[in-house]
Amino acid sequence: MSVVILAPPVPSAKWKAAFNALAPEIEVFEGFEKAPLEQIKYAMLWRFPPGVLSKFPNLKLIYSMGAGVDGVLADSSIPKELPLCRVVDPQMAFSMTNYILMAVLQHHRQWDAYAAAQKKKHWAQHEVDELDLQIGVLGLGHLGMDAALKLHQLGFSVSGYSNSPKNTPFSSYSGAALTTFLAELNMLICVLPLTPKTKGILSNPLFKQLKQPTYLINVSRGGVQVEDDIVEALDKGQLSGAFLDVFEQEPLPKESPLWHHPKIKLTPHIASLTREHESVRQVLENIKRLENGIPLLHQVDREKMY
Amino acid sequence: MSVVILAPPVPSAKWKAAFNALAPEIEVFEGFEKAPLEQIKYAMLWRFPPGVLSKFPNLKLIYSMGAGVDGVLADSSIPKELPLCRVVDPQMAFSMTNYILMAVLQHHRQWDAYAAAQKKKHWAQHEVDELDLQIGVLGLGHLGMDAALKLHQLGFSVSGYSNSPKNTPFSSYSGAALTTFLAELNMLICVLPLTPKTKGILSNPLFKQLKQPTYLINVSRGGVQVEDDIVEALDKGQLSGAFLDVFEQEPLPKESPLWHHPKIKLTPHIASLTREHESVRQVLENIKRLENGIPLLHQVDREKMY
Repeated sequence: MSVVILAPPVPSAKWKAAFNALAPEIEVFEGFEKAPLEQIKYAMLWRFPPGVLSKFPNLKLIYSMGAGVDGVLADSSIPKELPLCRVVDPQMAFSMTNYILMAVLQHHRQWDAYAAAQKKKHWAQHEVDELDLQIGVLGLGHLGMDAALKLHQLGFSVSGYSNSPKNTPFSSYSGAALTTFLAELNMLICVLPLTPKTKGILSNPLFKQLKQPTYLINVSRGGVQVEDDIVEALDKGQLSGAFLDVFEQEPLPKESPLWHHPKIKLTPHIASLTREHESVRQVLENIKRLENGIPLLHQVDREKMY
Repeated sequence: MSVVILAPPVPSAKWKAAFNALAPEIEVFEGFEKAPLEQIKYAMLWRFPPGVLSKFPNLKLIYSMGAGVDGVLADSSIPKELPLCRVVDPQMAFSMTNYILMAVLQHHRQWDAYAAAQKKKHWAQHEVDELDLQIGVLGLGHLGMDAALKLHQLGFSVSGYSNSPKNTPFSSYSGAALTTFLAELNMLICVLPLTPKTKGILSNPLFKQLKQPTYLINVSRGGVQVEDDIVEALDKGQLSGAFLDVFEQEPLPKESPLWHHPKIKLTPHIASLTREHESVRQVLENIKRLENGIPLLHQVDREKMY
């Protein structure tokens, strides 16, 4: 049984090591160049060259190495009947939610003001207030729901918006109620998948619906944001700041104005890195299921795109 | 009925405004100078001049305006039979826990490395790891327990230590097990009250019991730490960093080496500011209880000092 990993070098090497540790009987190839094309039944995919899967005539299952599947679905040469799964790692929610909390809390406590005061040896007691946050979580999938629930449990005022209605212990909106949802917020956390419906949603038409200066956190996909519009909304005061982990183009080009914008904090798409061991454990479980005719875990609905 | 507030100007003004809003029938005096000494039945205290209470012959109840009562108990001129209460504000636990989380998460995700990378326009993906934290909470009172429970719920590995055994969903130590507790940590969060037993506890003898470089967070009282020893432990590598909200002397003197130590982050005792409205609501409830002979809420045990 052979597996091919079609991804950039760093994740490829880590996944190969995890396969070797957990299932040494499986042959794993990095890249298509040296892979025995006809032997490969399973492909692990992340930022792979479009069309490359057509070289493998005997694929039975393909796997997105992260939670987002927009990259795989963008390759129209992949046969629609080939099952596609994605990694849904509980550790991913731990990382993602804790990253979101770090961003929320830095804003909530106005951390930058205290850091600046420390530099000046200034005792800024009674000068910097804790902010009253009205937090909205846009996207209540596996990761968005985890973050929203934990913010709620920490005592924050939280609401959520999702495509379809959800049963939540905080107020949540769906469908046409996006405008109502946006109007009450002063902090917006985007955890949407990238789909034709969400592409570029974080842009002027949405920002105009915000009634208060709103702090934006985007941890989902760069494709859901329009960076020129974010800069404009920050400069106009529609957005009070932005904490961004994802970008239209990654790595973020050196010439991007985001790097040095005084109201933007950014990180290099690290909010939730996939953990190779847990991911490979899920792949192995699904290979066993496929070979025994049992329904697959975390199979992607290609219409919904998640 | 009259109340006197004996505290620095900023909290005095805020508390007076809260009394005026919630109980306009009560006369409130800031400072003893203009107060009708014989009329005053209730005193609100925070950083007050020692001995000043002896000017008030008809006091029935005194109140610490914060959670810590070490300042009130240090004044030996206060009659032991005078009931002393302290504010225990659920909002205080919200602020305190979220401040602690901010400190934990900045270290967990190595925030400073990402901030430095942003300044250099450097895409630091795959360069900075999420740390595996073994968090110990020293002190499982109202505030320490809230923080420990929430860290546990967020998926962190947490243990606790308290004077007397507690029933906790995470492992907790008490009594002589302090050494065992300390040996397993790489992050120590101090939420102890200041008592003769805890004075200066964050010092060399404790740091020597740490088996791994440990990140120190102190949000309790400056008196529990020995700042010279913290600097020495940081320079020796026993401590990997420190996030301090409290200091031996406050405001922290300009000449303190803490301000510019590269491994120290500090804030001006703001982790949990008392909320005046909720605090005054509790005072009013206790005044009513006292006048009706009902047991007081949050009365301080002068032996235990909390």
